[in-house]
Amino acid sequence: MNIPASLERLVAELARLPGVGQKTAQRLAFSILRNDTARAHALAAAIEEVKARIRFCEQCHGYAEDVLCAVCADGRRDARTLCVVEQPGDIYVIERSGVFRGRYHVLHGVISPLDGVGPDQLRIRDLVARIDREPPEELILATNPSMQGEATALHLSRLLAGKVGRITRLARGMPVGANLEYTDDVTLNQAFSGRQSFGG
Amino acid sequence: MNIPASLERLVAELARLPGVGQKTAQRLAFSILRNDTARAHALAAAIEEVKARIRFCEQCHGYAEDVLCAVCADGRRDARTLCVVEQPGDIYVIERSGVFRGRYHVLHGVISPLDGVGPDQLRIRDLVARIDREPPEELILATNPSMQGEATALHLSRLLAGKVGRITRLARGMPVGANLEYTDDVTLNQAFSGRQSFGG
Repeated sequence: MNIPASLERLVAELARLPGVGQKTAQRLAFSILRNDTARAHALAAAIEEVKARIRFCEQCHGYAEDVLCAVCADGRRDARTLCVVEQPGDIYVIERSGVFRGRYHVLHGVISPLDGVGPDQLRIRDLVARIDREPPEELILATNPSMQGEATALHLSRLLAGKVGRITRLARGMPVGANLEYTDDVTLNQAFSGRQSFGG
Repeated sequence: MNIPASLERLVAELARLPGVGQKTAQRLAFSILRNDTARAHALAAAIEEVKARIRFCEQCHGYAEDVLCAVCADGRRDARTLCVVEQPGDIYVIERSGVFRGRYHVLHGVISPLDGVGPDQLRIRDLVARIDREPPEELILATNPSMQGEATALHLSRLLAGKVGRITRLARGMPVGANLEYTDDVTLNQAFSGRQSFGG
């Protein structure tokens, strides 16, 4: 193969990203080559910068550029509702949607005995201390609807019962745009058992 | 939205890449954040380096790190076969496959009157001069099997008839793994009209 070494290196680095195969890496590399240098420089700088600037918030353990993340530092956020998520990226997704005005706590994983992850490997002790210090009125367990996510939520709901007024989890059911024909049995089951009165 | 600015910038830069939507950009950004700094640095450096090092080969106009690309500089490549491609990236793909041992010429586009691209906007004059200087025995027109690619190949075949012993184009037909049921009519037509004797 007579391929320029720097091009081959870029394709190899891009192909290490999740969900990026050889063909996609090639396509991205060619596009970076075709774009002007300022564009490529902005991308490279953004990659370096994100690694240099982002750390974890000391309170919620989400992504932050200071000691506290912007949510924890924002006095206007509703301290009465605390939303527990698995990963820092989950906060990003919820914030983008603008659906939630309370505060967060990131577990940094889920309980998964097969992977050797128990409650002590997660930010759970921290969560308990935070709730003891400043008990919210509602705790939303927004772990993923996976086996481990559900197990983690169950563990937390038992651990924190009595400390919080109300413990909830996100609704399960059919996502917008879904089709009955292709909906799996578990989701269908949850959609039926959680059915809502028409008009509210 | 309370999202760290550096994270938002990285997502925005990634989302500018072709075929990368908002969700994919988020996924890539989170993965860059999770990976260690050395990995992110290698990616950023590869992007900067490819823009700094890669230029166009003075002979074939493909990607090169010197005056001549590695193919043109390689005396062992077969000078009797010249393969004409649309884009520099096409050379990358053919070289990776290892299927071709001749030399290349990159047009840097296709004839497309609607986009204001005529023969003069492509590296065609250059191709003619190159063939006059050093006529190959075979010229392979490896433009894409699109309307513009075919039109460009037709133009070249007329322009260069008489200058080259043999002008060919890549075989048209069903790609490996394809399915008769889902094959479009034009491809099916080409697969029938170009049918080959069994066993060769």
